[in-house]
Amino acid sequence: MSYRLRIGLLGAGRIGTVHATTIAQRIPAAELVAIADPQLQSAQRLAEHLRVPHVTPDAHAILHDPNIDAILICTPTASHPALIAEAAAAGKHIFCEKPVALDLAAHDAAVAAAEAAGVKLQIGFNRRFDANFARMRQAVVAGEIGQVEMLHIISRDPAPPSLDYLRTSGGIFLDMTIHDFDMARFLTGSEIVQVYAQGAVLVDPAIASVSDIDTHVTMLRFANGAIGTIDNSRRAGFGYDQRAELLGSHGAIQTSNNYPNNVVISSHHMVYRDLPLNFFMQRYVDAFANEISAFVHSVREDRPIVVTAADARAALVVALAAQQSHTEQCPISIT
Amino acid sequence: MSYRLRIGLLGAGRIGTVHATTIAQRIPAAELVAIADPQLQSAQRLAEHLRVPHVTPDAHAILHDPNIDAILICTPTASHPALIAEAAAAGKHIFCEKPVALDLAAHDAAVAAAEAAGVKLQIGFNRRFDANFARMRQAVVAGEIGQVEMLHIISRDPAPPSLDYLRTSGGIFLDMTIHDFDMARFLTGSEIVQVYAQGAVLVDPAIASVSDIDTHVTMLRFANGAIGTIDNSRRAGFGYDQRAELLGSHGAIQTSNNYPNNVVISSHHMVYRDLPLNFFMQRYVDAFANEISAFVHSVREDRPIVVTAADARAALVVALAAQQSHTEQCPISIT
Amino acid sequence: MSYRLRIGLLGAGRIGTVHATTIAQRIPAAELVAIADPQLQSAQRLAEHLRVPHVTPDAHAILHDPNIDAILICTPTASHPALIAEAAAAGKHIFCEKPVALDLAAHDAAVAAAEAAGVKLQIGFNRRFDANFARMRQAVVAGEIGQVEMLHIISRDPAPPSLDYLRTSGGIFLDMTIHDFDMARFLTGSEIVQVYAQGAVLVDPAIASVSDIDTHVTMLRFANGAIGTIDNSRRAGFGYDQRAELLGSHGAIQTSNNYPNNVVISSHHMVYRDLPLNFFMQRYVDAFANEISAFVHSVREDRPIVVTAADARAALVVALAAQQSHTEQCPISIT
Amino acid sequence: MSYRLRIGLLGAGRIGTVHATTIAQRIPAAELVAIADPQLQSAQRLAEHLRVPHVTPDAHAILHDPNIDAILICTPTASHPALIAEAAAAGKHIFCEKPVALDLAAHDAAVAAAEAAGVKLQIGFNRRFDANFARMRQAVVAGEIGQVEMLHIISRDPAPPSLDYLRTSGGIFLDMTIHDFDMARFLTGSEIVQVYAQGAVLVDPAIASVSDIDTHVTMLRFANGAIGTIDNSRRAGFGYDQRAELLGSHGAIQTSNNYPNNVVISSHHMVYRDLPLNFFMQRYVDAFANEISAFVHSVREDRPIVVTAADARAALVVALAAQQSHTEQCPISIT
Repeated sequence: MSYRLRIGLLGAGRIGTVHATTIAQRIPAAELVAIADPQLQSAQRLAEHLRVPHVTPDAHAILHDPNIDAILICTPTASHPALIAEAAAAGKHIFCEKPVALDLAAHDAAVAAAEAAGVKLQIGFNRRFDANFARMRQAVVAGEIGQVEMLHIISRDPAPPSLDYLRTSGGIFLDMTIHDFDMARFLTGSEIVQVYAQGAVLVDPAIASVSDIDTHVTMLRFANGAIGTIDNSRRAGFGYDQRAELLGSHGAIQTSNNYPNNVVISSHHMVYRDLPLNFFMQRYVDAFANEISAFVHSVREDRPIVVTAADARAALVVALAAQQSHTEQCPISIT
Repeated sequence: MSYRLRIGLLGAGRIGTVHATTIAQRIPAAELVAIADPQLQSAQRLAEHLRVPHVTPDAHAILHDPNIDAILICTPTASHPALIAEAAAAGKHIFCEKPVALDLAAHDAAVAAAEAAGVKLQIGFNRRFDANFARMRQAVVAGEIGQVEMLHIISRDPAPPSLDYLRTSGGIFLDMTIHDFDMARFLTGSEIVQVYAQGAVLVDPAIASVSDIDTHVTMLRFANGAIGTIDNSRRAGFGYDQRAELLGSHGAIQTSNNYPNNVVISSHHMVYRDLPLNFFMQRYVDAFANEISAFVHSVREDRPIVVTAADARAALVVALAAQQSHTEQCPISIT
Repeated sequence: MSYRLRIGLLGAGRIGTVHATTIAQRIPAAELVAIADPQLQSAQRLAEHLRVPHVTPDAHAILHDPNIDAILICTPTASHPALIAEAAAAGKHIFCEKPVALDLAAHDAAVAAAEAAGVKLQIGFNRRFDANFARMRQAVVAGEIGQVEMLHIISRDPAPPSLDYLRTSGGIFLDMTIHDFDMARFLTGSEIVQVYAQGAVLVDPAIASVSDIDTHVTMLRFANGAIGTIDNSRRAGFGYDQRAELLGSHGAIQTSNNYPNNVVISSHHMVYRDLPLNFFMQRYVDAFANEISAFVHSVREDRPIVVTAADARAALVVALAAQQSHTEQCPISIT
Repeated sequence: MSYRLRIGLLGAGRIGTVHATTIAQRIPAAELVAIADPQLQSAQRLAEHLRVPHVTPDAHAILHDPNIDAILICTPTASHPALIAEAAAAGKHIFCEKPVALDLAAHDAAVAAAEAAGVKLQIGFNRRFDANFARMRQAVVAGEIGQVEMLHIISRDPAPPSLDYLRTSGGIFLDMTIHDFDMARFLTGSEIVQVYAQGAVLVDPAIASVSDIDTHVTMLRFANGAIGTIDNSRRAGFGYDQRAELLGSHGAIQTSNNYPNNVVISSHHMVYRDLPLNFFMQRYVDAFANEISAFVHSVREDRPIVVTAADARAALVVALAAQQSHTEQCPISIT
């Protein structure tokens, strides 16, 4: 381990800031050497805080910098395919936030470019690296509950994002549920063969005005016969609600939320504790470190990528089917 | 309170035995004075154990006994409508196990007979009287979580019943899920307007041979816009899995299972506790006492019945729709 | 099982009412046939409620009633020795509330009388029959945690009793902690060889005026080398705080309190649940039934008593030593 | 924030490695510029791993390096006083591991030197910075439980350290319990005025051979009248057992251990989860970061030190009294 992987970041928004901080503070095997964002001022503040030497409004400057080994793509989804293609052509390894694209053609073209260039491409399904979900998967693999028969995923944000964000997000299934579709495949180890989505606007009527929904339950049927559900809401209110449970032929697994502390107070009126961690920056801080660390080690040690473009494609296919199911109000098979 | 309500029991099987024991040991305001069951020997053993003076193979003897105030119908479902009608004609108040009937015409005829006779008729949805579910409902009514938006019910038996039982049970939706349909209406306070059921035989292939399934998830849409799911399995393995959770506009409610004790042991390999209560005779022992007590008090004090025939009819309508959804593989609206 | 054990109750106060209700409603193998209490009116109300045929102000009438098989002594402690002796002389089996006496001479005389008469004598250490503590003991016996090394008992009432009660209670160590001294012996299976008590009046200064304390921690040393503590307060405020934990050479055991339900509500400000069960009538309802059932079966089947006078004596010895330690402010060895 | 605090580390053993890693990875406001340890090779490995430029066997080289702002003293306890004095004379701010010294004279001399030099001196009571204990203290300060009346601290290591370590550790009260004495003062906000210690060798007889014990319960009396206990064992077996609870006049507070994940698995035999975090490097990773961060900010912003030499002295006084109590087998007052 004589060198640190030199990483350039494209996009210094919410998730870009999370990854930049992770690399600066928790990944000794890598260093963040450049940040590109058209919003130059906020990128400069971030760079100063984390002692990143280069800042630029121009992604291309980073993509063609010979001193950079790998690129983190944290820009809006629509720009992902072109940036992947350009980074691949420049011989950079790529970590790209989910989803790769909002349609399959764009996804496939981008991935083909990365494959042709022989660069590594990891997708940001960070929850696989969370201690709770990783332990659930380990229990399934180790046979602790036998054959998986049922799955429930509860995945709720504390509050809805801005309408501006929602306008270009691709809709709840591609923006939010895509994490849960990946989780469903990850936990069960089985492919989703049918979806049926029931959605609603219950949180904020304005969300309907941008043609999106804020609440849904989507039922899943898996290739192995198992049945599952994903429950999404844009407003849990009490914090970030991220849980799952599995029933198997020999037992069951359940996770609960993560809390800032374990203190329980008994007053004369009730027994109470503090709210769970509020959002992904708190809940998944270790998961983000684990996923970037996995990427860095895959690149440095030339080992297979853990979360692949094929995983991202599978989740995208299900998300598009769920969207169709919601529109057509009927179950959709996935072939 | 100068007298005890004199009750006659029809059917000394599993649930009849539960109710008989409850009355003998936990309901000072009532006394069990007679038991009818064609299986005379087991009825006699039960009567002896509980000091019940009369035992007969003939239900009619009890239905026309002038010393009896009220009847508990715990016979196979198919016999419920006729027994309700006969008890009503004899002027007896009636507690009948769920479901009243396997079709709406029979249900309506039986209920009409009870109404015409002016006798009280309570249906055995015991779970409404469970401390956990009652507290959940109380929280909703008290506004502790605002408007209900999502519901999940997990309801799993420890092991499947015999094929003999399944053959005449009416199928999982009418036999098992009907409790959960009632619970869904009870917890949300809203009617179910659409169902979609995904079922499977995952536990025991023999269950398919009696035209039933052993596993399903049914998605519910409520009149108030809320979305819910019911998850049923005939085999939880670790015990009786009876939980629910609600998401509301201002918070969420969750229950866990009941355990025989609270002892947690930390060994050098894991932290563990004993399995949850195994089945309904353990889990709902207090709920059964509460429901019979409610019936006894409704009759003695001439107050309205808490769980009505209309509740039973609403659950039956949903169960039939779920069955149809499973058969036709599509969502079914309930009008 | 051709007959029911006929029981007479002496003392229809708080604990007498608990036992009377238990026998009437939960012990089919026994029947309560008479109640004696100088406070005739409240005894009559209790008898009417439970359909007990005889009520008398005079304990002797019951002690010499040839139709009575066994006596429950629930009178003030000072009267226990004489009543035990009289009941024994009359050939009645005896269940006596703890403590048997406030000094060893009186204890020994009473027990000698029972032994001489050949009647059974069980002492009311009900907590041994609680599901949590029984499971802890079972874990120790089964070797689930190896050799016991440390013990902590938390035992707190929700609120102090009346000063009238405290005046004749014998002091906190004999009235309240004596349950915990028994529990310490029961859980560890080892005798207490030294005590050191630190007490205080923190709850209500009036308690000092009756020469008692309301708060203490007492340290225990066991014959097997283990060390333990008992923590008592007359005011937990949030309910009845009844917990224990053990450390052993191969693991640890912990119990928590019992709650009226398992419902957890997440509001936008905190995650909360209802308070634990408030006091012994709620928390130990099953334990009381189990202890009376054990007594009834020991008598009817002529089997050894489960909680003996020797157990009561051992706890009394420790309680007196703790009292002395508190007074003299130093550790007291028990030989 | 134009510069990073330059820190030199003395002692690259277990705790020195923890602090070095913390500074390198979690404290952007500081940088570790030099490590001194007579065991040069392991210091070099650590320096290489963390990219620390200077390594030396000689503490004096660091103490007199003009490029160094602050010193972390992580050497054996016996060397603390002289190193504090030397660092103070050189004008370095000081973070010193607990205890400052094994006797009061040495403690006082070292602290006087730091005060005379006007440098800051923080002591390593890291647990005050743990999320659970910090939240407990906050609840007390905020009045969530009223006046503190009782305290219990459970503090157990997973396994005993080596006999070599124990030989120079100063004994369990100064080495291990000193953390708990500080915690007792911190949580209650009251001084300890009396101690009584019951100790034993239950884990490993060899520990007696180095004149130490491995198990004790120490009872505390506080100036405000509260009573408390500290329970220490060198072997919890299942992991690092770090809990506390408080009873107050208006409620109670309880913490549980920290676990690597929240996954609960229900098998057909038991319900289980993984063991708690194994030792201080896992359990207190955030607490260590918080305490170093607090030190760095106190120095850089010239603000008061959060955990002072006076805190360390108070804990030392109690530890010495506990040791005396254990030897003399009686309560010891602290004036």
